[in-house]
Amino acid sequence: MIVRALPRASNVWKRSFSSTSARREILDAESLPHRIIPRYQESQTSDLLSLQWPSPPRNILIIKKDRAPQVTESLVEFAKHIHSNYDNVSLIFEPKVAAQMHRHFQFPIYTTSSHDTLPAKVDMTTTLGGDGTILHASSLFSTTLHVPPILSFSMGTLGFLGEWKFGEYKRAFREVYMSGAEAGSPFLHDQKHPHIQTETAETGDIVTGWSSVRGKSMGPTRSSKVLLRNRLKVGVFDANGNRVIGDNTAESADGDVHAMNEVIIHRGNEAHLAIIDVFIGGRFLTEAVADGMIISTPTGSTAYSLSSGGSIIHPLVSSLLMTPICPRSLSFRPLVLPSNTPITLRLSEKNRGRELEVSIDGRRRSRGVGVGMEVRVNGEHIAKGQEWIGGVPCVMRHAKTGNEDDDGWVGGLNGLLKFNFPFGDHE
Amino acid sequence: MIVRALPRASNVWKRSFSSTSARREILDAESLPHRIIPRYQESQTSDLLSLQWPSPPRNILIIKKDRAPQVTESLVEFAKHIHSNYDNVSLIFEPKVAAQMHRHFQFPIYTTSSHDTLPAKVDMTTTLGGDGTILHASSLFSTTLHVPPILSFSMGTLGFLGEWKFGEYKRAFREVYMSGAEAGSPFLHDQKHPHIQTETAETGDIVTGWSSVRGKSMGPTRSSKVLLRNRLKVGVFDANGNRVIGDNTAESADGDVHAMNEVIIHRGNEAHLAIIDVFIGGRFLTEAVADGMIISTPTGSTAYSLSSGGSIIHPLVSSLLMTPICPRSLSFRPLVLPSNTPITLRLSEKNRGRELEVSIDGRRRSRGVGVGMEVRVNGEHIAKGQEWIGGVPCVMRHAKTGNEDDDGWVGGLNGLLKFNFPFGDHE
Amino acid sequence: MIVRALPRASNVWKRSFSSTSARREILDAESLPHRIIPRYQESQTSDLLSLQWPSPPRNILIIKKDRAPQVTESLVEFAKHIHSNYDNVSLIFEPKVAAQMHRHFQFPIYTTSSHDTLPAKVDMTTTLGGDGTILHASSLFSTTLHVPPILSFSMGTLGFLGEWKFGEYKRAFREVYMSGAEAGSPFLHDQKHPHIQTETAETGDIVTGWSSVRGKSMGPTRSSKVLLRNRLKVGVFDANGNRVIGDNTAESADGDVHAMNEVIIHRGNEAHLAIIDVFIGGRFLTEAVADGMIISTPTGSTAYSLSSGGSIIHPLVSSLLMTPICPRSLSFRPLVLPSNTPITLRLSEKNRGRELEVSIDGRRRSRGVGVGMEVRVNGEHIAKGQEWIGGVPCVMRHAKTGNEDDDGWVGGLNGLLKFNFPFGDHE
Amino acid sequence: MIVRALPRASNVWKRSFSSTSARREILDAESLPHRIIPRYQESQTSDLLSLQWPSPPRNILIIKKDRAPQVTESLVEFAKHIHSNYDNVSLIFEPKVAAQMHRHFQFPIYTTSSHDTLPAKVDMTTTLGGDGTILHASSLFSTTLHVPPILSFSMGTLGFLGEWKFGEYKRAFREVYMSGAEAGSPFLHDQKHPHIQTETAETGDIVTGWSSVRGKSMGPTRSSKVLLRNRLKVGVFDANGNRVIGDNTAESADGDVHAMNEVIIHRGNEAHLAIIDVFIGGRFLTEAVADGMIISTPTGSTAYSLSSGGSIIHPLVSSLLMTPICPRSLSFRPLVLPSNTPITLRLSEKNRGRELEVSIDGRRRSRGVGVGMEVRVNGEHIAKGQEWIGGVPCVMRHAKTGNEDDDGWVGGLNGLLKFNFPFGDHE
Ligand SMILES: NC(=O)C1=CN([C@@H]2O[C@H](COP(=O)(O)OP(=O)(O)OC[C@H]3O[C@@H](n4cnc5c(N)ncnc54)[C@H](O)[C@@H]3O)[C@@H](O)[C@H]2O)C=CC1
Ligand SMILES: NC(=O)C1=CN([C@@H]2O[C@H](COP(=O)(O)OP(=O)(O)OC[C@H]3O[C@@H](n4cnc5c(N)ncnc54)[C@H](O)[C@@H]3O)[C@@H](O)[C@H]2O)C=CC1
Ligand SMILES: NC(=O)C1=CN([C@@H]2O[C@H](COP(=O)(O)OP(=O)(O)OC[C@H]3O[C@@H](n4cnc5c(N)ncnc54)[C@H](O)[C@@H]3O)[C@@H](O)[C@H]2O)C=CC1
Ligand SMILES: NC(=O)C1=CN([C@@H]2O[C@H](COP(=O)(O)OP(=O)(O)OC[C@H]3O[C@@H](n4cnc5c(N)ncnc54)[C@H](O)[C@@H]3O)[C@@H](O)[C@H]2O)C=CC1
Repeated sequence: MIVRALPRASNVWKRSFSSTSARREILDAESLPHRIIPRYQESQTSDLLSLQWPSPPRNILIIKKDRAPQVTESLVEFAKHIHSNYDNVSLIFEPKVAAQMHRHFQFPIYTTSSHDTLPAKVDMTTTLGGDGTILHASSLFSTTLHVPPILSFSMGTLGFLGEWKFGEYKRAFREVYMSGAEAGSPFLHDQKHPHIQTETAETGDIVTGWSSVRGKSMGPTRSSKVLLRNRLKVGVFDANGNRVIGDNTAESADGDVHAMNEVIIHRGNEAHLAIIDVFIGGRFLTEAVADGMIISTPTGSTAYSLSSGGSIIHPLVSSLLMTPICPRSLSFRPLVLPSNTPITLRLSEKNRGRELEVSIDGRRRSRGVGVGMEVRVNGEHIAKGQEWIGGVPCVMRHAKTGNEDDDGWVGGLNGLLKFNFPFGDHE
Repeated sequence: MIVRALPRASNVWKRSFSSTSARREILDAESLPHRIIPRYQESQTSDLLSLQWPSPPRNILIIKKDRAPQVTESLVEFAKHIHSNYDNVSLIFEPKVAAQMHRHFQFPIYTTSSHDTLPAKVDMTTTLGGDGTILHASSLFSTTLHVPPILSFSMGTLGFLGEWKFGEYKRAFREVYMSGAEAGSPFLHDQKHPHIQTETAETGDIVTGWSSVRGKSMGPTRSSKVLLRNRLKVGVFDANGNRVIGDNTAESADGDVHAMNEVIIHRGNEAHLAIIDVFIGGRFLTEAVADGMIISTPTGSTAYSLSSGGSIIHPLVSSLLMTPICPRSLSFRPLVLPSNTPITLRLSEKNRGRELEVSIDGRRRSRGVGVGMEVRVNGEHIAKGQEWIGGVPCVMRHAKTGNEDDDGWVGGLNGLLKFNFPFGDHE
Repeated sequence: MIVRALPRASNVWKRSFSSTSARREILDAESLPHRIIPRYQESQTSDLLSLQWPSPPRNILIIKKDRAPQVTESLVEFAKHIHSNYDNVSLIFEPKVAAQMHRHFQFPIYTTSSHDTLPAKVDMTTTLGGDGTILHASSLFSTTLHVPPILSFSMGTLGFLGEWKFGEYKRAFREVYMSGAEAGSPFLHDQKHPHIQTETAETGDIVTGWSSVRGKSMGPTRSSKVLLRNRLKVGVFDANGNRVIGDNTAESADGDVHAMNEVIIHRGNEAHLAIIDVFIGGRFLTEAVADGMIISTPTGSTAYSLSSGGSIIHPLVSSLLMTPICPRSLSFRPLVLPSNTPITLRLSEKNRGRELEVSIDGRRRSRGVGVGMEVRVNGEHIAKGQEWIGGVPCVMRHAKTGNEDDDGWVGGLNGLLKFNFPFGDHE
Repeated sequence: MIVRALPRASNVWKRSFSSTSARREILDAESLPHRIIPRYQESQTSDLLSLQWPSPPRNILIIKKDRAPQVTESLVEFAKHIHSNYDNVSLIFEPKVAAQMHRHFQFPIYTTSSHDTLPAKVDMTTTLGGDGTILHASSLFSTTLHVPPILSFSMGTLGFLGEWKFGEYKRAFREVYMSGAEAGSPFLHDQKHPHIQTETAETGDIVTGWSSVRGKSMGPTRSSKVLLRNRLKVGVFDANGNRVIGDNTAESADGDVHAMNEVIIHRGNEAHLAIIDVFIGGRFLTEAVADGMIISTPTGSTAYSLSSGGSIIHPLVSSLLMTPICPRSLSFRPLVLPSNTPITLRLSEKNRGRELEVSIDGRRRSRGVGVGMEVRVNGEHIAKGQEWIGGVPCVMRHAKTGNEDDDGWVGGLNGLLKFNFPFGDHE
């Protein structure tokens, strides 16, 4: 993990930190310092990881729900709060949102239209919206192995992925921002990290570590708990084995994109059944005649797969789900496979020329997939080394139980999915 | 039942029967004599009905599977057989098929492009294809209460609706043609049917009843067994309650169309869930958040509804099925309702302006259904009076069991649907 | 329908009606007048029937929930209310309940230990308990075709079969008692019913029709709505085809018993799978390898069949459900059959000597059923003639909608079964 | 791993190996040398492990199917083959089988009635029967962490766990016996293993390693592939938290027993629903009202859990399944949990005194479990160190694909479970 030295005398940078007069500018996120990659510490008592910032996060991406005017006000409140209380933090928005919002702020905000910039710059993402907003945020990092941690606020009804109520935003942000500051951070105490000195020296005027943050610390043991959600890797290939480039996504090194929930092949508005040959680990499994097929992560097991009859899989069961959508069969039961199983869905010749829809995390990803094309899926490999690689780190809310190690999953089953909701008249 | 007196000196008519030279004409089905409506007799031992022609059928509609060149040859063979063996029979085809086929025949064939003509002229329909072909044939009569009996031949694999193998066509056609001829027919013996005399008199040269048919009779007790399949009545209405005219269908008196399998509302290629308010018998039942909803006949219970988790309902259980497609709910179980229950599916305001797909028997029926629109469904009322009204009369094949009263349903479950197919290694 | 002339000078009778001093006796129900069989009138607007007493009901059977001490108090209150307000009504209890309760009453109560007495004497049954209590009440008439109407009060949580809350008992009983009194009853106005005169003459002092009932009438249009629930006919036969007599039930004429919910074959506490050959309409359908098999009425579709994955069938869909319990198969889907389909479940030789459990409506009915034995099931035939024959007439509560014709089914799905209960956080 | 030095001049030992005259004795397995624990080597290309014997296996346990006389003959053939071709191998049987079989053999066989002996002595288990036989074999080691590898032969129909056809027994046994002999074995080449010399020296006359085995070697790369199946740990506790001793099993160190398929709580032949409180990771999840509850391994996902609607989980997905049996709920979906999740099933007070059945791998394990009792379940921890600890090592058959690394799972889904068996008429 390298914190890139800041460009000396960067105008952009200076403006954003030193100017006191109102600025309603939109700046290029490219000019921001390189991102800080946190560490994730395992614990004895919990399957959740403990978030450890080596130095305070600076570049915060804020994603808001689409077409939801009521979220705008909350977003303004949230952004202003961050700006006033965390001087050295820059706020990044998606272009459309930046354009729409910047007049609300007395300070510059950042944006970018390049798919490469966000993975390089964003320390942490916050979302204001529902599960769809989180999926969208995650999709912005669908080609990188180091997804920044996501702190998500639900607006209106709670989602299954979203964790925090908007009313909690001050405490929530503080907690994540400070996470690891005192307990584990090498930043304040560890002289072996020369890049910290360098940074201080170079910028001259910005603060060291968390000391400038107003207000009281969260205490040494308060580190944010992170659920690392496994993703899928998806590649689409034509009948000749050439990779079909997704239409709206920068591709990763190998060209695959990652999904947080699932990838789906579906007949779309073709009235007829789709016919899909399914291969598992290179072996032909079956010819699926169905509305479509879902390959899902455990996270996605409570999304489309659930509606299609799949079991509910805890997000920490390392696995892939294969769930058919309305299969024309009495005997097509959902399968759960080891996450390292390569799965291929190939459009059978029998579809006679028509195209199917491929969508990832609820978004259509192609102009249609024709006969002979293949969707190749694999679980993302998560490596635990010094830095964790892979997965989407989601900041969890402390459960109502007061138990810090509660991953909230059981609560979500009951509270949100109405799991095994009791019969009877309880009006 | 009135057999319309034939127009004296009809050119068309004359040509088709008297000409001996090769004719490769396509004539207008409008010129054919009015259809003959059969009777259906109940029996003590069976739930199947016994087909009784008052006089021999004359106007035979032949429907073939779309885009299936291999069926063409069989169709030619079949048509030639009918023409050579049943002089007074005229063959009607859909316009496209007629255009494509007529050069194969030395005799004139009939067609029509008017939706009203077929219900007025067709005595009996034969299909060469699969279940989709039968559904299509049935759709040609979707606005009439007197669907002519359907004799269906499967080409290739047997379908669940299709009954006869093509290899059996000679015997099958003979059996249906003769059904009721000797045992029950008033035609030959009953002088109280003046229209028969009239007809004979007018045409001068054509035969009386079945006497001209070459070959031996099927015996007095051989009448064809008919399964009367209940249909659905479907109307689509806009937010103001005005009927939305289907785009490719003549509407019936009240504007409703009939479905043999089901009517479906589906999100189509919209990536997001559809939201549909469901009313039963005028009462609000539930808000369905799902890929879609199916309202199905018992016949359709082995089609899309089965894929969506519905139970299998015997076609003679008078009922409607309501089966959700991928509902975002753990507790949406398929329902089976009395067939006289009015069901309304209304597109909720929450769909925010987007359109859903409505399809009937596997065909899209509208340009999309928008917010506030309603699909209103009811079971077709079947009246048993002197003439049966309603339903699709399907000519059943005698079961292998040799039991004439076997409706073949149990055989189909096992042979086609692989119902409760045993586990184990039976290679 | 014959109201049996009362035995002149019957001691029993006299005591129960003329005595003014406190009587804590238990009398023999055999001494009561023969039952009155109501008529059920169909309506245009509803699928519910309208209950019409030809003369006021006199013999009321009261069934209470087993082992539920809290019900006792309510029962005392209820019984006293009936006794005080409806002089000519006699209360019948099951022997155990009678023994336990009679000291609470200042008036005689009736009981019987003969299975034949209840069907001959009971005009109407009231239950205090849950669905199990109603099933038990119905089982007391499992061999008769004229089940008296059941008015059921739920104690504690509402059941799916039970309709009325106990708090409503005064109004509810009045309504049923008076049902048809003014509007349709021939009793008051029709001089053609000599047995009424006879009765009055014989008993000398008791009232004519409903005139003696204190309090206001319910109005001419207030007749109780009755849902006639179809039953199953069940016979158990040994390997030689001999009927196996149920161990605790008088058998009907043909020896069959009736079930309101379902008949079940189950492995019980045998650890191994049961193997059952299934025949439909005399044809072999399949070999079920499973925990067991359920043959259910539509009423029972919301009971065990639902737990086993069956669809929900409206009670007025005339049908039988066949739902396997944990079948060792991927392709055993529940079936819905016409109610007149004979179904046979035969214990396969492969069970190697062990016995399975047969239970009807939640009660074990045999000492175990061994290899070769058959359970033969058929839907009960309901005849509509002058008197309805067959079915269990259940008095329905007026829906909250205020709609008299609402059969309450939709309300029950939502309120009790939590049908399609919405996802999300609605605390 | 220590190969215990053999007792010099052990009579038992001498007899079994040196005697040439016919011996029809049953000897005490206690007298056999201590077992040899194999190593399992991971591979790059496969998720299967490679079996590596440090020295040839000597003590072979043979388990045969219960009450299956036709298996007896095969067993005799198999045992004689082993005895003739593998001199230094001793055959161990269960007491009943030993008693029944020993007269067939000209050589002594071994048995034991002590539960501790088998885990201490058995190098390898072979089963002749079906899945139930394998489950039973596994149950003999339900309290040990080092289950010997199981080589299973199916008699009659193939099971899902059983791998080899009996006809293959010579090749199969040879392969397992030799596994690792040349390629990886330290035995023949590695002088650092002094116990080998010791052994040779001590016994004087027996062979070194595999050299004495007649016939050709399987080649250096031919090592048996082993699927290590995860087990469950199960403990049953009374209302006071005291462990309830299983009635027919020696308990392991901590008293838990292991299950290969599943543990089940079931109502047995109680006619009423069971009520079970379910806790996950110490948190209350739900009150299950059902026939019962299944906690299953991935291996067991194709057994009872499948019949109850569970998904199919690949045996290598480290997880626990929780599948309800006929839950009285519309919203109780099967769950898949991380294998280290502690699950507790507690019998609710609401069961009012009755007892439920607990069974493990298809065997009832207790006299019934009463109110307040708990079944506590956890996934077995598998440790990979120098020696693998935990799991049931099952010797896999080379797939027909010729691919050595094929775990046969896909083949089993299609061939045995008839997964997604195609519709249609394929007679
Ligand atoms: N996921 C699914 O199961 C889907 C099913 N369908 C069904 O397809 C029907 C239209 O048929 P096609 O035009 O041939 O479309 P298609 O080419 O999509 O094939 C539908 C399949 O369903 C079979 N089928 C049709 N009606 C049946 C019935 N009543 N019972 C048993 N099998 C039946 C046909 O033989 C064929 O195998 C629709 O009415 C709908 O029920 C349509 C789309 C998706
Ligand atoms: N029939 C179905 O169930 C369908 C489901 N979807 C799901 O919607 C997702 C996209 O979400 P939106 O853009 O919000 O689309 P959307 O507006 O169609 O809503 C999808 C719903 O699923 C919920 N959801 C999303 N991910 C979830 C998860 N992992 N666990 C539990 N609930 C989850 C959302 O909160 C929302 O209620 C897709 O990834 C797909 O899983 C999409 C189409 C149909
Ligand atoms: N309704 C059901 O499905 C029931 C299933 N069982 C299962 O039976 C097992 C005991 O087996 P048996 O003693 O042979 O009893 P059994 O004689 O009742 O037969 C159970 C069947 O399950 C098969 N089976 C066992 N384990 C399997 C696995 N892991 N994957 C696929 N198939 C498997 C066997 O081959 C046999 O066909 C139990 O562990 C339980 O899983 C037991 C009772 C009821
Ligand atoms: N796994 C299951 O779902 C089981 C269900 N049962 C059902 O229980 C019935 C006997 O009832 P109880 O004596 O009270 O036994 P019980 O004490 O086991 O309770 C059965 C439950 O089913 C409900 N119920 C009964 N009939 C119903 C119906 N027609 N629709 C909806 N809910 C209904 C009752 O209210 C009660 O909650 C049997 O006829 C059988 O259907 C019996 C055993 C197991």
